[in-house]
Amino acid sequence: MLQASISVVIALLMGLLGVWYVLWQFKRVLSYEQGTDAMRAISEAIQEGAAAFLGREYRILAMFVAIVAVVIVVFLQWQTALSFILGATASAGAGYLGMYVAVRANVRTATAASHSLHEGLRVAFGSGAIMGMSVVSFSLIGMTVLYLLFSGSPHQLTYVTGFGFGASSIALFARVGGGIYTKAADVGADLVGKVEQGIPEDDPRNPAVIADNVGDNVGDVAGMGADLFESYSGSIIAAATLGATLANDVAPAFIGLPFLVAAVGILSSLFGIYMVIGEEWDKKAHAWLAAHPASWAPMALRVLTFLKQYVAQIDEKATLQELLTALRRSIWGASAVVLGLTLFAVLLSGVSFNYWLVILAGLIAGNAIAYVTEYYTSYTEKPTQGIAEATQTGAATTIIQGLAVGMMSTVLPVLIVAVAIMLSIWLGMKADGTLAAGLYAVALSGVGMLSTLGVTLATDAYGPVADNAGGIAEMSHLPHEVRLRTDALDSLGNTTAATGKGFAIGSAVLTALALLAAYVSAAQIDNLNLLSPTMLPGILIGAMLPYLFSALTMMAVGKAARQIVMEVRRQFREIPGLMEGTGKPDYKTCVGISAESALHEMILPGSLAVIVPLATGFVLGKVALAGLLIGATASGFLLAVMMANAGGAWDNAKKWIETGEFGGKGSDSHKAAVVGDTVGDPFKDTSGPALNILIKLMSIVSLVFASAFGSGWFNF
Amino acid sequence: MLQASISVVIALLMGLLGVWYVLWQFKRVLSYEQGTDAMRAISEAIQEGAAAFLGREYRILAMFVAIVAVVIVVFLQWQTALSFILGATASAGAGYLGMYVAVRANVRTATAASHSLHEGLRVAFGSGAIMGMSVVSFSLIGMTVLYLLFSGSPHQLTYVTGFGFGASSIALFARVGGGIYTKAADVGADLVGKVEQGIPEDDPRNPAVIADNVGDNVGDVAGMGADLFESYSGSIIAAATLGATLANDVAPAFIGLPFLVAAVGILSSLFGIYMVIGEEWDKKAHAWLAAHPASWAPMALRVLTFLKQYVAQIDEKATLQELLTALRRSIWGASAVVLGLTLFAVLLSGVSFNYWLVILAGLIAGNAIAYVTEYYTSYTEKPTQGIAEATQTGAATTIIQGLAVGMMSTVLPVLIVAVAIMLSIWLGMKADGTLAAGLYAVALSGVGMLSTLGVTLATDAYGPVADNAGGIAEMSHLPHEVRLRTDALDSLGNTTAATGKGFAIGSAVLTALALLAAYVSAAQIDNLNLLSPTMLPGILIGAMLPYLFSALTMMAVGKAARQIVMEVRRQFREIPGLMEGTGKPDYKTCVGISAESALHEMILPGSLAVIVPLATGFVLGKVALAGLLIGATASGFLLAVMMANAGGAWDNAKKWIETGEFGGKGSDSHKAAVVGDTVGDPFKDTSGPALNILIKLMSIVSLVFASAFGSGWFNF
Repeated sequence: MLQASISVVIALLMGLLGVWYVLWQFKRVLSYEQGTDAMRAISEAIQEGAAAFLGREYRILAMFVAIVAVVIVVFLQWQTALSFILGATASAGAGYLGMYVAVRANVRTATAASHSLHEGLRVAFGSGAIMGMSVVSFSLIGMTVLYLLFSGSPHQLTYVTGFGFGASSIALFARVGGGIYTKAADVGADLVGKVEQGIPEDDPRNPAVIADNVGDNVGDVAGMGADLFESYSGSIIAAATLGATLANDVAPAFIGLPFLVAAVGILSSLFGIYMVIGEEWDKKAHAWLAAHPASWAPMALRVLTFLKQYVAQIDEKATLQELLTALRRSIWGASAVVLGLTLFAVLLSGVSFNYWLVILAGLIAGNAIAYVTEYYTSYTEKPTQGIAEATQTGAATTIIQGLAVGMMSTVLPVLIVAVAIMLSIWLGMKADGTLAAGLYAVALSGVGMLSTLGVTLATDAYGPVADNAGGIAEMSHLPHEVRLRTDALDSLGNTTAATGKGFAIGSAVLTALALLAAYVSAAQIDNLNLLSPTMLPGILIGAMLPYLFSALTMMAVGKAARQIVMEVRRQFREIPGLMEGTGKPDYKTCVGISAESALHEMILPGSLAVIVPLATGFVLGKVALAGLLIGATASGFLLAVMMANAGGAWDNAKKWIETGEFGGKGSDSHKAAVVGDTVGDPFKDTSGPALNILIKLMSIVSLVFASAFGSGWFNF
Repeated sequence: MLQASISVVIALLMGLLGVWYVLWQFKRVLSYEQGTDAMRAISEAIQEGAAAFLGREYRILAMFVAIVAVVIVVFLQWQTALSFILGATASAGAGYLGMYVAVRANVRTATAASHSLHEGLRVAFGSGAIMGMSVVSFSLIGMTVLYLLFSGSPHQLTYVTGFGFGASSIALFARVGGGIYTKAADVGADLVGKVEQGIPEDDPRNPAVIADNVGDNVGDVAGMGADLFESYSGSIIAAATLGATLANDVAPAFIGLPFLVAAVGILSSLFGIYMVIGEEWDKKAHAWLAAHPASWAPMALRVLTFLKQYVAQIDEKATLQELLTALRRSIWGASAVVLGLTLFAVLLSGVSFNYWLVILAGLIAGNAIAYVTEYYTSYTEKPTQGIAEATQTGAATTIIQGLAVGMMSTVLPVLIVAVAIMLSIWLGMKADGTLAAGLYAVALSGVGMLSTLGVTLATDAYGPVADNAGGIAEMSHLPHEVRLRTDALDSLGNTTAATGKGFAIGSAVLTALALLAAYVSAAQIDNLNLLSPTMLPGILIGAMLPYLFSALTMMAVGKAARQIVMEVRRQFREIPGLMEGTGKPDYKTCVGISAESALHEMILPGSLAVIVPLATGFVLGKVALAGLLIGATASGFLLAVMMANAGGAWDNAKKWIETGEFGGKGSDSHKAAVVGDTVGDPFKDTSGPALNILIKLMSIVSLVFASAFGSGWFNF
């Protein structure tokens, strides 16, 4: 039976391996050639804008972190505050690193795409891999170091929970701020550029074009990285905390198991990445094995050759379909490796084989949700085609149909998650006889679902790099075929992003529920009756919060976009020769306005997410807070899936029409589809994803402060 | 201390008084003059279409009722089946009667409006009063007769619950079927008539115009009547059932109290109606008192003279504002009378004074939600004006802003309901020390909120009559001032309808929660732990159902509207001289298509609402079903409020622009506003209101079958 601390040390070592890979890949991506001066100038403008925004965002967040840290020291302990600060820093660091590379990889991807599709993928995916691996390894290192640091204390895991809280706080602000930034710039650029002035997307004459590109990086790279950083940390913390409740009664290995699963997940993710862009390693390994003729070398060579069958499929002239297959295989391959290695981990830990089935259930559920997401949002399928059909009778029917598709698309993910939860609880209870074991199994299932995050995030995070590369190719007038290749990479990224979203949403629910269970145990609530006096109001208020949150973020996008529209209109009016291409647009002001309004607008929703659970816990008591959490999780899950899928479906319905269906580009149908797409923008890139974080952040705030809540001011 | 049966007999007598009033008013409305032959021809076409639709709808429902009755006999008892059939019949009867009068009052209202605004109101409101009073009195008579019939049986109240189930089933189908009918016809008529052919609304050349008018009656009159019939019955049944759990331990009066509150509510509603259209009674009363000089006559005369101050304010030249004030006063007046009389009822019953406070809380909460609803949907207020402002940047920003306003508008209603629940539970627990008393108080609060339904429904149900009258005035070329008057009545109805909606939504949540509590008690669930293995999946699945339901109903409206569009286009193409006014449109085919598709599309969502809770209860067990109910109630409440208010706000944003703001009618802003209005149509008139019924129907199905559920197929 493995000691928890041994598992934790193994996880720490794997985290360090991940950091080593990040550094290696970092050097490699930056060593690619950068292209022409014109391209570099654009890239530098994006770099500058992104760095300036993240710098200001992090300064605001530093203040927030400082205030909350003081609150934690006052109400709880300095150790939790330390963990909180470290969690916030690690998350911000991973986000910054990912963004830093992404804004440098874009111009290099454009250059590489001049050579071949695969060359472009290699650079973009390398950048995505850096994001993915730095998220998982920073998170794992942070948590394991804290765990070892506080070892011996009876509150060891309570302290580590602060790390998750720190990560969640950063995630929420980064998602909301980045989401508002990217959509305000996007909508603002389109409304004046495409609609009023009639110039194409990514046209360098549009003053908001750089802001739009910056937005992709701060929203879809840094924002998403922070989002998944907290999912990953939260799932492990929830499982370890619930494991601790079992440790005394059943086996101490329960605490270490989630760390061990995460550790093998890093190995598997590296394998998955290798399957996409591993030729270089492959060559090195062959050379090294040939030079070291040990007894096991021929065997190792045979394994490598077997694996190469898959890697080799991507050659220089690979088609889009081949690349997609390669990416899918890499995720499946990583999943297969995780399953193999976790079987070992489970056996080594000495816990029941059922827990391996739980991990399997988590991975299958994640993949199933991903499949459903793809079905509902891909334009080769009926739902999205139905929206395209509805564009024929105008914008109103387009919106109605899109909302209906979004609502309908919630059914299967909910059923999948419900089955995964029931199965996990059942397996856990069968193995160890208590409800606590069942809830631990739910948490472990979430860890399993996210174990391959290193590679799934890579397939997700390279999309914005390809998107930016396309913008640079357009603005610096590269040959049309380059743009075609970056577009192909971008659309490949959109498809694999559906997979990423499936995992993100599924794991968010499992993690939130596991954190809720951990909260209930930490707050020592003995009567969790559904009909308790404060439970019902708590559930209703909780269910309302995602609506409030979405309303605030959608209004924020609208407000910020209007400011951009005004500025772009002013520039077209006041700068002589702008339309003719002789005047130079003032990109910086647009970048500044986007940043200013995004940062301003993120404060209220972000703060609410921390203040509301605290206020509920103190005023209405810990039972009401449990109700609030379950209400928010259920309602937020539904609303998030609905918004994400409706947004994706509208986007792709428009793209389908652009392939020539229902009159093609410029037709009335297309105009109606653009309305749908614009409505979908804040749905899928601002409000929807922020809800994922909201439900986890509120749960983790509650968990951290659990010991401080009483039964409330009202006396029943 | 009052015996329960005495309270029930009092309620029965008040119900009979209500029926007497209905008959009296019925004769009175039908005795108004009908106007020209042209007007009568149109009215008869509407009568025919509405009767045909309801006839077919009721035939389908009769089959459904027969099947479910057999299921009830098999799984439960014949007594419950009998109640179920009676509940369905009484609800259908009230709906049919309301519709029967409404389609005859429309032409009479148009004629009356030729004389004066007040005259028009008198006829239209008289028709609404028939609907309101028949709903409350049919419901009360049905329940009290069954209660007395089954007296002596230990399952007396369980049997009566079947009445609520019958009423709920009819309500759901009538709301969904009627809602699909009315919006399909409306959207279909507008898309071809207004948009493609450029003819105005209610133009007799439009083949869908009669279907549109029929839709107002079958959806907004019969559908809404059935909706509130079930709210009313459900709230009383829930309170009586929870009261029975207290009867043994505390006082038997708890069972009778809700009946007593409903009984005094009938008196108060009659008073409220009197305040609007009571001159005739007033005169009669004066004459009678003068002829009977008893000792108390001078006192009674003084009271009447005092009351007349309010009634007298509505004279023949009353302005719109005066009429609105009169309507509001009548609702407040009825509320005041209810409070006075229920104080007596509570004291007579011998229960704690706290229960009177609970009723007060319910009435205040209902009024507060109504106020919030009005704030968010009225164009004199900021939220709706914000949507109008967003129309300047196109349809997409109009939709985003409208959805954001709808989401934001959920915050206060949720907080109001949460406070009402907490307060009720607290008052009940303080009075009698048990959680059961607290839950009973929640139910009683719902009864209080709906006690004045007779008059609130009247203010709601007269709107469609005025709307239809306007259509008839337009089609039969009455003088323009008549149309102006019916428009004024219509817009008055829209404002007071917000009040009605507030009560409907607030009471739906309270009733659903009370029914849930009754279910938990009836199913003898002892461990209602939030973290039970099947509870969490139940909550998630429950939260998903309103989304599934809304998706199905919105898609149904779209599908049905497309069929109407096709038929109207065909008629314009094939009937010679239709546009010129020489050809005669074929109204009947459009009426037939609307009916056909509405009836076809209502089956799936309607059946799901009954089948899903039953399947959950049998397969996953009674704890999962409790989770499902709470999840559905919370999520459905939020979605219903969001949809209703977003729809109302879009509608009024368009109307505000039509007053000349942002370019007025025909401007680009107006076009964007029309998109918002069209999206809002199924939101506010089909999907949103149907959710109210869904959550109550599922709760009552569960309550009826509570004794048949076990712990499910899975063994935890």
